[in-house]
Amino acid sequence: MSKFFSEETSAEAVNSRMGDRANPRLKQVMSSLVVHLHAFIKDVQLTQSEWETAIDFLTQTGQVCSSERQEFILLSDTLGASMLVDAINNRRPSGATENTVLGPFHVKGAPEREMGAAISFDGKGESCLFEGRVTDVEGRGISGARIDVWSDNAEGFYDVQQPDIQPKWNNRGTFTTGADGSYSFIGIKPVSYPIPHDGPVGQMLRKLGRHPYRPAHMHFIVTAPDFQKLVTHTFVADDGYMTSDAVFGVKETLIAPYERLQDAATLWRSSFNFVLAPSS
Amino acid sequence: MSKFFSEETSAEAVNSRMGDRANPRLKQVMSSLVVHLHAFIKDVQLTQSEWETAIDFLTQTGQVCSSERQEFILLSDTLGASMLVDAINNRRPSGATENTVLGPFHVKGAPEREMGAAISFDGKGESCLFEGRVTDVEGRGISGARIDVWSDNAEGFYDVQQPDIQPKWNNRGTFTTGADGSYSFIGIKPVSYPIPHDGPVGQMLRKLGRHPYRPAHMHFIVTAPDFQKLVTHTFVADDGYMTSDAVFGVKETLIAPYERLQDAATLWRSSFNFVLAPSS
Repeated sequence: MSKFFSEETSAEAVNSRMGDRANPRLKQVMSSLVVHLHAFIKDVQLTQSEWETAIDFLTQTGQVCSSERQEFILLSDTLGASMLVDAINNRRPSGATENTVLGPFHVKGAPEREMGAAISFDGKGESCLFEGRVTDVEGRGISGARIDVWSDNAEGFYDVQQPDIQPKWNNRGTFTTGADGSYSFIGIKPVSYPIPHDGPVGQMLRKLGRHPYRPAHMHFIVTAPDFQKLVTHTFVADDGYMTSDAVFGVKETLIAPYERLQDAATLWRSSFNFVLAPSS
Repeated sequence: MSKFFSEETSAEAVNSRMGDRANPRLKQVMSSLVVHLHAFIKDVQLTQSEWETAIDFLTQTGQVCSSERQEFILLSDTLGASMLVDAINNRRPSGATENTVLGPFHVKGAPEREMGAAISFDGKGESCLFEGRVTDVEGRGISGARIDVWSDNAEGFYDVQQPDIQPKWNNRGTFTTGADGSYSFIGIKPVSYPIPHDGPVGQMLRKLGRHPYRPAHMHFIVTAPDFQKLVTHTFVADDGYMTSDAVFGVKETLIAPYERLQDAATLWRSSFNFVLAPSS
């Protein structure tokens, strides 16, 4: 190879510069990144003005980030990168509940509540009983599993998006299973909502002919000693955006039934069992 | 293919969402980007914490950008992407002078000067006569070619980096060739300098075991009616960073001789002919 950069050997020219004492994993990741970045540029024969557009887009994406907004995570989500990383890092044995993306609205420290308690305090939405069991892959109930749940309200906003409007910890709570592994709580039937789409990522979606909506879902983190941490949602089965989630979070096994009740304490019931894989 | 995202069909799942009426070129570019981005993530089996590091890095890179600093261009430069785009968009017939990157320090509107005039006004550095001809690929002089030149000063800074220290337009000028296509002006022998390395890109270079230096070079933009615009540098032949330019800008054909003079008006002379390719 020539000592100098050329179109033909561009990626090798860059990667041959990395120092011998650089972290081997960093070198592996960055070398692969350079190979794929250069292959992309060559595949599409990227023009100078397209490159300028890309630089502007990335710059705007970085500049719109703040303590309340993470536009690069949104970009990763909408390009399927977040779900792919999640999939690679959470392969599970058959029968164990699948992961999906955490999303930007989880808040640590939600109040611990009694089984069966309500988590929705703004008086909005259609009430729903969430119930089921936390088990191992053999179906044995797991005692002492912690369940951290959160959802949007009936207008499609999480409490942290409306700190002046919604009660603190609205539609959030943590629960601990008893001996049989069962859980239950009363929330609302979640509704679909758009991801923030007034920034560069929203503009990208519009230009690609894509909408910004996520199908309605309830978030769960389920943890128990000796089991893999489960970060997932259950999706509302009749949602119109089920096959076009803007962030690709839907897995078929995570679609939950929502049963309309008569003469009951809640309008809906959604039953779902969480099956935890053993820690490796 | 399933209607839902999976590790196996991740890129197809994303690309199948693009609307029928989106711009075809945009779809082509973004589809290729998604394919290569997902292939990269799979190749290295990117971990969740590495993904978080990447999100943080991109965010910091965007946030450090300002009207005086473009860290994403620096990132593109240091990963060889800028040079690759330049190479793809400026393929030239054999014998024509090669392009290299524009760099961030060009300023439009540099003063028009007489042939042979000086461009260096801070009294620093080793004087150098730059001379040669602008010709077509058959060696015929091009009359009326405009030459826009700029370099750093003897301390490695461009005038725009030191507006309170250097005279305005220090080491800059534009010249127009006469009938035979020849040019000459008096500047200084340029010196090597580091690209800005106090930000995320500098940190990346350190972790990769790479230095931030560019070998000494004089910038040229040469234009003439009916010829392709030439954006290039000439490199100072004896520079120690010649084979390790932080932005991969060196091409062997752009290395210029610097001849030490005795009893002459300047300490050095650098002769270089610019050969323009016809516009297509």
